[in-house]
Amino acid sequence: MDEIDMRRVCAWAREGGAIACGFFNSVQGHRKADQSLVSQADLEIEQMLRDQISEHYPEHGIVGEEAGSQDSDREWVWCLDPLDGTEAFLCGLPIWAVSIGIFRHKKPYRGVVYLPATDECYWNDAQGAFWNGNPIRVSEKTSLDRTDWIITHSRTHLDYEVTFPGKMRSFGSFAAHFCYVARASTPAALIGYPQLWDIAAGMAILQAAGGVTTMLPDGAVLDPQVLFEHKTSPRPLLASPPALVGDLVRYIKMRQTS
Amino acid sequence: MDEIDMRRVCAWAREGGAIACGFFNSVQGHRKADQSLVSQADLEIEQMLRDQISEHYPEHGIVGEEAGSQDSDREWVWCLDPLDGTEAFLCGLPIWAVSIGIFRHKKPYRGVVYLPATDECYWNDAQGAFWNGNPIRVSEKTSLDRTDWIITHSRTHLDYEVTFPGKMRSFGSFAAHFCYVARASTPAALIGYPQLWDIAAGMAILQAAGGVTTMLPDGAVLDPQVLFEHKTSPRPLLASPPALVGDLVRYIKMRQTS
Repeated sequence: MDEIDMRRVCAWAREGGAIACGFFNSVQGHRKADQSLVSQADLEIEQMLRDQISEHYPEHGIVGEEAGSQDSDREWVWCLDPLDGTEAFLCGLPIWAVSIGIFRHKKPYRGVVYLPATDECYWNDAQGAFWNGNPIRVSEKTSLDRTDWIITHSRTHLDYEVTFPGKMRSFGSFAAHFCYVARASTPAALIGYPQLWDIAAGMAILQAAGGVTTMLPDGAVLDPQVLFEHKTSPRPLLASPPALVGDLVRYIKMRQTS
Repeated sequence: MDEIDMRRVCAWAREGGAIACGFFNSVQGHRKADQSLVSQADLEIEQMLRDQISEHYPEHGIVGEEAGSQDSDREWVWCLDPLDGTEAFLCGLPIWAVSIGIFRHKKPYRGVVYLPATDECYWNDAQGAFWNGNPIRVSEKTSLDRTDWIITHSRTHLDYEVTFPGKMRSFGSFAAHFCYVARASTPAALIGYPQLWDIAAGMAILQAAGGVTTMLPDGAVLDPQVLFEHKTSPRPLLASPPALVGDLVRYIKMRQTS
């Protein structure tokens, strides 16, 4: 039996999504982006999640994007991104998420990523990784070629030299990018430099789906403890099946910056 | 009074979307992409649209991605992309569209772009451009800076040198990319090399929202007649407000290919 009731955590993520939807599209895309409105949604969702976690798991620590850290040295630490993909949210685009990651001994253990605009819930438990109740698994591909498309991030044109011969797309939510790899919608993703809460849930789901989180330039496996210490990843991250790390490292080079 | 009943055309697009949804996610992302399934959805939707157009507008020509051209020298020509963004569709991602463009004298006149996964309908009529019934308008920005994000296309890392200092994202549907510019979700898009039916509807909606379709490398306005002759655009296209064409041309250079 799981130490964490994941059905309950999924319900909290959906509750967070409902709060977010109350603000979604009340900002028209053609108006000036209203950052204060996002902040309000962010804060409301994070507070709701903190209240639930504190009530049901009073011994656990919490790290959130909005309200900072609380007992982050505990065995169990929850990492909250109440609204991942805020630009997409503000612009009326559908790919943004409520992301709830649970670390145990500073290792990704469980995660829930809920995409309210499409009502999609990704999570993992002791049985594996799931999308809307269906088991998911990373791609079985062992190499990348020009017929593939992979996920990239929004600063790729500035920060990397990419020789990958296929297509690259970017949707604007770190959490969704991890889930799309976990589900094999795409074989792999260049994630970039996320913060701990951006990917806490995604890493757990990816791992349960058979994937790994690695780092440029050499494809070394990420030690998640580093994210606890630095909050922002010190090296660009990749999400993929283990078999594709070699190709990614070969096709994506970090640019020398002066 | 409009020569074309756009409410009726929107209803056809929604009917096409309902057909597509019958196939959507019946292919799991982690299975091998089943191209035959997309073809079946494509063909069914296009046939339904051709039947409706022929019944209601028997004098009009039709150009479709699947079934080719029929009377494309008429005053009125319908350009159909029954499923724009087939990769996104196959991979279970939400941004794909039914696209119905109407040309008059080989100029973009009316368009409907329907995104079934998020139930969003974009169209234009004599009153302007609309998203789910709300009037839309391109961005009022007159320059691009590092706080902006713009849309790119999936081969940008191979075909262009981009010095734009902001972010770039790509969602996988030409039709949606045009609509996101028309709605000012993003100020501008590098579209790439679409075919006539990919953008027939998008061009009409963008134009009605105050935008223009131009070409690299110099920002010249596209003569849509070229698309009728070549089907695929001979030069990469841009979608933006007129005021941003200069910045786009400065920030995006075509790579010299040997």
